Amino acid sequence: MLHFYYGVMGSSKTAQLLMQRYNYQQLGLKVALVKPAVDTRAGQNVVFSRVGLQADAELVLGPTHSIREQLLWLAAQRAHSDFQYLFIDEAQFLSEAQVQELAELSDSLDIFCYGLKTDFRGQFFPGSAALLRLAEVIEEVPGGLCWCGKKATMNTRVDPQGSVIKEGAQVLIDNHQSIRYIGLCYEHWRKGISHG
Amino acid sequence: MLHFYYGVMGSSKTAQLLMQRYNYQQLGLKVALVKPAVDTRAGQNVVFSRVGLQADAELVLGPTHSIREQLLWLAAQRAHSDFQYLFIDEAQFLSEAQVQELAELSDSLDIFCYGLKTDFRGQFFPGSAALLRLAEVIEEVPGGLCWCGKKATMNTRVDPQGSVIKEGAQVLIDNHQSIRYIGLCYEHWRKGISHG
Amino acid sequence: MLHFYYGVMGSSKTAQLLMQRYNYQQLGLKVALVKPAVDTRAGQNVVFSRVGLQADAELVLGPTHSIREQLLWLAAQRAHSDFQYLFIDEAQFLSEAQVQELAELSDSLDIFCYGLKTDFRGQFFPGSAALLRLAEVIEEVPGGLCWCGKKATMNTRVDPQGSVIKEGAQVLIDNHQSIRYIGLCYEHWRKGISHG
Amino acid sequence: MLHFYYGVMGSSKTAQLLMQRYNYQQLGLKVALVKPAVDTRAGQNVVFSRVGLQADAELVLGPTHSIREQLLWLAAQRAHSDFQYLFIDEAQFLSEAQVQELAELSDSLDIFCYGLKTDFRGQFFPGSAALLRLAEVIEEVPGGLCWCGKKATMNTRVDPQGSVIKEGAQVLIDNHQSIRYIGLCYEHWRKGISHG
Repeated sequence: MLHFYYGVMGSSKTAQLLMQRYNYQQLGLKVALVKPAVDTRAGQNVVFSRVGLQADAELVLGPTHSIREQLLWLAAQRAHSDFQYLFIDEAQFLSEAQVQELAELSDSLDIFCYGLKTDFRGQFFPGSAALLRLAEVIEEVPGGLCWCGKKATMNTRVDPQGSVIKEGAQVLIDNHQSIRYIGLCYEHWRKGISHG
Repeated sequence: MLHFYYGVMGSSKTAQLLMQRYNYQQLGLKVALVKPAVDTRAGQNVVFSRVGLQADAELVLGPTHSIREQLLWLAAQRAHSDFQYLFIDEAQFLSEAQVQELAELSDSLDIFCYGLKTDFRGQFFPGSAALLRLAEVIEEVPGGLCWCGKKATMNTRVDPQGSVIKEGAQVLIDNHQSIRYIGLCYEHWRKGISHG
Repeated sequence: MLHFYYGVMGSSKTAQLLMQRYNYQQLGLKVALVKPAVDTRAGQNVVFSRVGLQADAELVLGPTHSIREQLLWLAAQRAHSDFQYLFIDEAQFLSEAQVQELAELSDSLDIFCYGLKTDFRGQFFPGSAALLRLAEVIEEVPGGLCWCGKKATMNTRVDPQGSVIKEGAQVLIDNHQSIRYIGLCYEHWRKGISHG
Repeated sequence: MLHFYYGVMGSSKTAQLLMQRYNYQQLGLKVALVKPAVDTRAGQNVVFSRVGLQADAELVLGPTHSIREQLLWLAAQRAHSDFQYLFIDEAQFLSEAQVQELAELSDSLDIFCYGLKTDFRGQFFPGSAALLRLAEVIEEVPGGLCWCGKKATMNTRVDPQGSVIKEGAQVLIDNHQSIRYIGLCYEHWRKGISHG
């Protein structure tokens, strides 16, 4: 089965992924921790959660990598022939073709994808759109809150003055200097009100 | 709040919508039952569920209708100034602009949309894609079953011989003669196996 | 697997049960519709939902009946040797021993119990307590609303004047003359406020 | 609203509680972290999760403490007059009277209780039974797995040889010497099979 757990920034998706993986590992099951590389030059392989958990991804997927081939390679490294469970962080950055591969692999494999649903403009990421089309289980990771106390559903890009930005490149890393991201409810995102 | 309850054909979405509306009506709340007209010439306004429930839509939306304007018109007809709850059946046929309007209206209105997530090719309907992007609550209406006993997630078009069709117009009414629709699990949809 | 779907009066539990059963029957699966007899002398076997759906229970369980034995008897009547799915309405009236039997049967059978969680005093029914202890899947059937608009969670017994009653026999049939039942949110049930 | 999130041992309840509290704290909301003292002599106030998160409880409740009074005391310590959110770990150890107090406090306060549903014999803890009766939102914390791969729902006490124990005191701390706890599916708990 292919699962997609989506949630806004700050909803503790990665922490939930790492806890779920921990539970499966404790039972001796064969799991792989996977992460798409947004920028393959960087080669960053750390899966990191703000609440204080982290782990190394065992597979860092470039945008044109075949997941099937990469898994065969990883299984060979580990001298076992297959996997039972995949955990994929930042799944919004998967390509449509990679999600298609996951859907096919999920006949015989349980795959748990965690990621954002939409970008700062309220548009899909390619991986999210494909996962929402094809995943057999779709669930929200709750926990994101707007400053007004309502559930946050919109990933919002704000500048250092707190102004809501609605135009620009889809992917721009939160550097806490020129931009950062916060979760807002739909109404406050739409009206561009980033604080009370 | 804008809610999207999606499910495959045969998952009793319309019955659930009609029961929910019934409960709200019993409390004397101001509700409207809405349906997009796939073909405006037909003017069909019946909201119908196979299990034996039906009701008349109070608003039949043409593809270019403004929901906001139509609601003002309907409220005037009823001599009350506003609505508290909207129930929208077959919401996959809404246009992107109509879903955008719903998202704005949902600041002050609870809106419950029921519809399909994807078409027979596994692609989004325009209304479904917009609802998945913007709805604040997204839930599956369970109940669709594949012939193999697994949960059905794919709306499948089959010809009279039971062959799975994967090409053609997005919207084609189930006439039980040239085509009909069934729910399959992802694996059996992908492999084109419509029965055991 | 043993499932318990609980909900307040008026949350359309029975309608949901009948729709789910309909979907399983359509696929040719072997299902049985079961109902505990609150009063075995009556022998009423109708499974009835206010929204306009009903069916005849195939098994009416007396308080000391063994479900296992009754199912063997029913299978013999039908000339097939087993069942795949049981649908049990008003499951709060099952005895603890019957729920224990269901938990054991659920190794090889999918069992869907629908019922109330608590009585008009906020205390468990025997069947509900046992199901909450042993069921492997527990889900709320949503849809009950308090007059204030909040979710209703408390089954409330009121007299013809609308006064909230908190003492008396656990089971007393709603006759619309001396008493009736409504759903309230916890706060309004606790404060005994049955309308706005 | 009063929420009860239940799950078996090892389902990462405490980690989820700590992440949720972290998200609320980040927004500057007034939260309190509460824990019942199973043994008040010990005075242990650490809220601890195996995956690597922990925090100090701000309130350790003795079995006869009034939560209302303790919160007034804590608010006075902090020089603010009220709380907006309570997070309660190990909520199965609350007394029935304490849960009753929580239900009343939840008119104006959001309360999130995390705990076990049943003990090693499949019987309720006092706090769990009361929470299942009165909480307005009841959800399972998923993640517990049986050795067979199915969802674990039963907290199981095993001796050092791995034999399943079904008699004894309800509360007995896991010391990894005389006893420990594992999660099993209902079938394997019932049959007393603790490993494959």
